[in-house]
This record gives sequence, C-alpha cells and structure tokens, in this order.
Amino acid sequence: MTRVGFVGLGAMGAPMARNLLAKGFAVRGFDMRAEALEELAAAGGERGADAATAADGADLLVLMVVNAAQAASVLFDGGALERLPAGRCVVLMATCPPGTVASLAERVEATGRHLVDAPVSGGVVGARAGTLSIMAACPQAIFDEVRPVLAAMGDKVFHVGERPGQGATVKTVNQLLCGVHIAVVAEAFALAAKVGVDLDVILEIMSGSAASSWILKDRGPRMLEAEPEVASAIDIFVKDLGIVLEAGREAKAALPLAAVAHQLFLATSGRGDGAADDSQVIRTYELMNGTTRG
Amino acid sequence: MTRVGFVGLGAMGAPMARNLLAKGFAVRGFDMRAEALEELAAAGGERGADAATAADGADLLVLMVVNAAQAASVLFDGGALERLPAGRCVVLMATCPPGTVASLAERVEATGRHLVDAPVSGGVVGARAGTLSIMAACPQAIFDEVRPVLAAMGDKVFHVGERPGQGATVKTVNQLLCGVHIAVVAEAFALAAKVGVDLDVILEIMSGSAASSWILKDRGPRMLEAEPEVASAIDIFVKDLGIVLEAGREAKAALPLAAVAHQLFLATSGRGDGAADDSQVIRTYELMNGTTRG
Repeated sequence: MTRVGFVGLGAMGAPMARNLLAKGFAVRGFDMRAEALEELAAAGGERGADAATAADGADLLVLMVVNAAQAASVLFDGGALERLPAGRCVVLMATCPPGTVASLAERVEATGRHLVDAPVSGGVVGARAGTLSIMAACPQAIFDEVRPVLAAMGDKVFHVGERPGQGATVKTVNQLLCGVHIAVVAEAFALAAKVGVDLDVILEIMSGSAASSWILKDRGPRMLEAEPEVASAIDIFVKDLGIVLEAGREAKAALPLAAVAHQLFLATSGRGDGAADDSQVIRTYELMNGTTRG
Repeated sequence: MTRVGFVGLGAMGAPMARNLLAKGFAVRGFDMRAEALEELAAAGGERGADAATAADGADLLVLMVVNAAQAASVLFDGGALERLPAGRCVVLMATCPPGTVASLAERVEATGRHLVDAPVSGGVVGARAGTLSIMAACPQAIFDEVRPVLAAMGDKVFHVGERPGQGATVKTVNQLLCGVHIAVVAEAFALAAKVGVDLDVILEIMSGSAASSWILKDRGPRMLEAEPEVASAIDIFVKDLGIVLEAGREAKAALPLAAVAHQLFLATSGRGDGAADDSQVIRTYELMNGTTRG
C-alpha cells in the first residue's frame, strides 16, 4: 500500500487527504491545528507529530501549504525532506511563483529526491468532490509514478511539461485570467450602475451572450450582494495576481491588464476588505466612481 | 400587413431584413450598394430609391447603418424621418454611444415620432439564424408595439429600460466585457509563451477551468493561428471600445481595464492590422514582449 505524507490540512488539503484515504492510500498527515489532525484520524488517517514525522518513510510527500515560503520551511528547516527516503517525490500543490518552484526543485534534486510541481484549480468545491484540475510538471517517468495519487484528488490531471515551474506557470496563467475576469465584471457593472441600468438585467443578458464567462456566472450574482458569503477572499487575488506579476517580472513579460486588476484588489484589501468575498472588488469601483449597486 | 422600412443592408442588415420577409413582414429597403438591393428584391423585398423612399409611409423604420453619424444623416439630412408617418417608430439597431442615442431620440421625439434604442449582439451568425440578442430601451407601450418585429430578427429580446440610450449602454457593457476578454486571453498566452509552456495545452486546460469564457473558446483557437479567417476585425473593437470609453466619459465613470484593452487594439490597428481577425491583438503582445506562438 502506498503511504502518502500530507502536510497542510486546511480548507483545500483536508478534503484532498480524505479523498486519498477513500481511494485506499495510507495517509500520515500534519497541520498546525489540532482539530485538523483529529478530522484526519476520524477519516482513517494517521496523525503526525510534526511535518518530519509525516514525511518519515513515506512513498511520497504532498505539500498543500499556504505558499512557497512555508513549503521551504517544512522541507529544509522542519526536517521533512531528510526524513523522506532518497529517490522519493515531494508533490508541491500550493500556488507558488514559477521561478521559486524551479529553485525549490533544484534544492530538492540536490538531495537525491524529486519535486513534482502540481498546483490545482477548482477550489474547495473541487477539492471535496475530487474534481480538481491538476497541472503537473516533472519528467515523464516521475509523472507516471505519481499519477495514481494525483488522480485520487482530481479528475483532470494534466502533464504540462518536464520542468518544475511549468505547472506553476499554467496555474499563474489561470489566475491571470480569473483575476482580470473578476475585475472586468466589476468594471462592467460599475458602468451600467453609473448610467442607471438594472444590474440584474445586465447579469441575465451577459450570461447568455458572447460576454459570458465562468467567472461572470459564478461571481456576478455575489457581486450584486452587499455582504455575500465568502467563497474566496480578496486577499487570495492580492496574493495570486502578485504571483502573476512576479512571474511576468521573472520572465520579463509585460502584463498590463493583470497589473491594473492587481491594483484594484490591492486597494480593496488596503481599505480593510481583504477578508471579504473577492466579488467585492466592485466596492473599489463604487468608491472610485461614486456609484451604488441599487 | 406591417410594412418595415429598412436602411443598411450590410453583413448584419441583409440577413435581418431577409428574416423579416420570411416572417411575413413587407420590407422596403435601401443601401448604397446596388447588389444589396438586388438581393433584397430576390428575397421578396422592395427596393427603395433612397432612404427617404424606404421610410415613406412605413409602419416603422429600422436603421442598421454603420454608426450614429450615418443614422443622423439618414434621418435628418436624407429626409427619411419626415417621410415616416407621425407617431411611428425609428428602430436604431446599430452600435452607438449611449449619449448620442439619447440626443437622437430627443430630436426624433420633437417631430412627433419615437426612437427605439435596440442594439444587437450575436454577430453575422446570429443575424442569419434569427438568434440575435436585442437590447431594447423605450417606453413599455412602444416596446409592446415593436416587439413582433424585433422577435423576427432575434430570439432573445430584452426590454432593458424606458429611456433610449439604455439599450446602447447594455450593448456597451457587453462590448466592454468582450473586448477585455479578448485582450486578456492574448495577455495570458503571451505569458505562457514567454515561459515556454505549450499554448495548445494552456487552451485545453483553461477551457475547462474557472478561467474559461465564451471568448476564450471562440477566439482562443484562432489566436493560435498566424493568419486566421476574419470573423470580426480588430477595427470593430477599436470602434466599440472607443464607444465604451466615450460612454464612460459621458457618465464620468473610470474604466481602467477597458482603457488598457483599447490601447492594445489601437496599436494593432496602427501597425496596419486593423482588418485582421480581432484575435490578432496577440501580435501586439508578441512584438511588445518578443515572443512567438510556435
């Protein structure tokens, strides 16, 4: 039986680990929150005393931590990497800047292990349902080895390249599109509101026209609410569009639309709305243009 | 039998007039091109010697001309308005700035006729199939009167407001979303190309993720071609995003994403690519960032 070490049992990681257990993998996990470990144990997993214990003797180590800095800390400072047997894989599934992932991969390879760059898309809903999109970059032989583990967490598993960092790039491109799509829906609603056209009518018509997007249908209705339930926070896009622009700086690619969208999320967070649902970037347009939603 | 005067029998207007004929309306049309009038006659319509003749005694007058300036010229300089009987409606279906439409409506109302602001979405494909979205703004009683005529040309007929200009606003919002969506797909592809990720893989993954949009699926494949067939030209979005920004200026609404997207289409046209397919805005990103698509 394949044993998976799993570090980071948050909103995404916890259901991903449960899906591994449901598909017959043994999972020893770690998270800073005690209740996350209790939930893992209740689902049939094993509690690790720390990240190094979770990694100890594992067939592969999944990291679903907050960012690249946490991943580095777990691997190199927390001792998880040296407890993972030589020749095994670290599967990094957090959203990280492509250049940082490439550097991490070099450091991991230098110790005789491998790094699979495998960020995900699909959110908490996809994590729970096991329907994540997973964008993996690593040599083909390694991909073939880890594919069954990835397939337990996502139903759309892509091998996007041979070099770690390319998965992060695909995720970055995804977030570039999503972030700009959210901001432009807010901009479109702001114009309609300023001219006095009913936003419910706008949403209905745009959802059935060439102007439609997955984001419009998902975020549009929440954008019409003053205080919607938080599905994904403004600060996630402050971070992710920051990663997009960092990837652009690393590659020296100008990304003017992403840069503007980032400023709008940043201003929203700067006023204290960072924990609000990301649809509430429309508040920045309202304050800027002096409009209301109705 | 309702008789429709129809001015502007171009790529959109010609199939719209044919659909009116097919649904049992009498149509007397006019266009500057003789062959357009021959095609109308072949479909069972009547040739007008000029726009005024097309309007003479009509139950309503449809304008599917290039822009607001042409509409004003037909109505006021060409004598079409005074030949339309008092109390009847001018149905303006071209894409025009909202403020200009409101002014035109005032001038038309001053002569005892009405203006129905009714722009369309759906392109030549929708015009041919009779599946246009039509966004009409006018008082309710007038909408009820013209609805059967609109329903002969589009299967999604919306009454978006009581005041002419509101239909143009909804169309403007639609074009804001479409224009930015096209440009951001180009930006996303540019980043991926710069980092060396396969654009076919990007297109496949993004089409099934939260990053998807109608535009991504429609323009994405054409964006990967060097010289795609022209479905809609760069210069259409130079014009339409220009109308978006003019609407923003009229309403005093800041539209930063639309402004950036407009600059990208403008630069593409300025290099001589204005007649290229609008997906080719990606050429500006390629020249700017020094990337290629293949």
